[in-house]
Amino acid sequence: MTDGTLATWNDTSARAAIVEFVERVTTEGGPDYVPRPERVATFDNDGTLWCEKPMPIELGFILQRLTEMADADPSLREKQPWKAAAERDYHWLSDVITKHYHGDDTDVRVLMAGMLQAFAGMSVEGYAHAADAFLRGGTHPTLGRAFHACGYAPMIELLAFLEAHGFTNYIASGGDRDFMRPITEDVYRIPPERVIGSSNALRYLEDEHGGTVTYAAEPDVFDDGPVKPIRIWSRIGRRPILAGGNSNGDIPMLQYAGGRDRPALRLLVLHDDPEREFDYTAGAEKSLETAATQGWTVVSIKSDWNTVFADAPA
Amino acid sequence: MTDGTLATWNDTSARAAIVEFVERVTTEGGPDYVPRPERVATFDNDGTLWCEKPMPIELGFILQRLTEMADADPSLREKQPWKAAAERDYHWLSDVITKHYHGDDTDVRVLMAGMLQAFAGMSVEGYAHAADAFLRGGTHPTLGRAFHACGYAPMIELLAFLEAHGFTNYIASGGDRDFMRPITEDVYRIPPERVIGSSNALRYLEDEHGGTVTYAAEPDVFDDGPVKPIRIWSRIGRRPILAGGNSNGDIPMLQYAGGRDRPALRLLVLHDDPEREFDYTAGAEKSLETAATQGWTVVSIKSDWNTVFADAPA
Repeated sequence: MTDGTLATWNDTSARAAIVEFVERVTTEGGPDYVPRPERVATFDNDGTLWCEKPMPIELGFILQRLTEMADADPSLREKQPWKAAAERDYHWLSDVITKHYHGDDTDVRVLMAGMLQAFAGMSVEGYAHAADAFLRGGTHPTLGRAFHACGYAPMIELLAFLEAHGFTNYIASGGDRDFMRPITEDVYRIPPERVIGSSNALRYLEDEHGGTVTYAAEPDVFDDGPVKPIRIWSRIGRRPILAGGNSNGDIPMLQYAGGRDRPALRLLVLHDDPEREFDYTAGAEKSLETAATQGWTVVSIKSDWNTVFADAPA
Repeated sequence: MTDGTLATWNDTSARAAIVEFVERVTTEGGPDYVPRPERVATFDNDGTLWCEKPMPIELGFILQRLTEMADADPSLREKQPWKAAAERDYHWLSDVITKHYHGDDTDVRVLMAGMLQAFAGMSVEGYAHAADAFLRGGTHPTLGRAFHACGYAPMIELLAFLEAHGFTNYIASGGDRDFMRPITEDVYRIPPERVIGSSNALRYLEDEHGGTVTYAAEPDVFDDGPVKPIRIWSRIGRRPILAGGNSNGDIPMLQYAGGRDRPALRLLVLHDDPEREFDYTAGAEKSLETAATQGWTVVSIKSDWNTVFADAPA
């Protein structure tokens, strides 16, 4: 490729697979042609579109809030997850995710109980404002970049490439939907109505200003594993033809792409670049096995990307 | 107005309120200017965008399915709602909705239990196919029109008018989301991803074709009353500035429009035209009271519309 298409991608089989697939589904009269409205692409966010190590960015936001709570109420400091937050115990926190990927949700439940307390009673607008300030103002602990600039340049370029070819891109993340929404338009050109993710339960409270939607202290959707295709259908009403993920929790979404009558491209991001990003497969073992047996396209950060991070959007 | 704008609307205060509001929020530099992405409009469907009498169109679809079930299994014929379906007892069925609007959900639960059985195990694609065939092939029992042509011409024209002024239209219906989706693009120019509504719970079942999303025999969301603003936020991540409804179940959605910092237009369709459509206020009493006290725009079918029904889309 010499036309500047996907310039942050090296000239490898991963890029060739993307270009070939897009050409195939956009060739009118061709056997695999897919009309524009049906060109739906869904992407996981953490570890697929942006960096999730040493811990998911959202966790930093939750920690900040839990620390504020522990500062205000010292009795919380002996109790998880407030204890880990107040002591900046990143090991405990990182293990929560790794254990989850291995099927042990004990600590996920402890963390989620804390999260539910952390934002209970907050309005969706207040939460969006706090998330926006955190994401635009905070800095990644090891990369030294604004959180806002932790998106992968090749994936951002891929989203634009797909959009230019009539695709509609969605995020389908295990992370909190409303945490991402304030910045997805600027970072990925994906507006809030195309962000699917986890959420706490919401309540509508009447007031003199047209009512307020607020978070309740109870979970609603955990958008991971088999829940991903379900939420994708619920929100879009169409089956995607392209899906991108990076972990075991993305397997059902990747499998769901295409279906009986349509072609599909499944991208699995492999974190194998300790120099420029991180090197880990914890939580991704089954997805890598499935990719190997089913011929999914594995995207190696080390080999397939000549650039990893983009500058923050203006 | 002599420019053909909203030509199916009479030159009354309702039409003037719409035109004035749209002008106000689209006037750059004006005090009430709203940027395009924030121009979100949400509409109830049954009784607001299309006819809901003598019974909601969806109920006809459910009846058809329940009748098939009762034909196949005679023991069901002595049991509601199969009995009403098999005997074409429209009175029992119509009362279900009226009772619901008055706060009595006994029969709604009976009907919903039947509905859950009716579609349990069906794939979302199979259901969409059946709904599509019913809506395009069936005829309204008293109007003699295709169901597909039971949309109100002035509301369809309003949707197009809003779209032409940079609005994004959504349906937020108490009716079943997936029942409407196959035809909303053709009838209202609203694609499936912008249809919000009630739904049974879904399951993801693995298979050799990328998995199938199917309906479970349990309810998930009943998108009515205070649930409407919650689902609107969940799906869109924005607060609408325009909302249209016709019943008590739409009050929270109508109140939610605008909010603290934005202007709002709230439209309440009044069914007062027994000649051309129907004449009823059952289930709309509180919404009409609220409209009167809060200055919402009541749209009289008799006085404000010179045409009621459009031809079926080509």
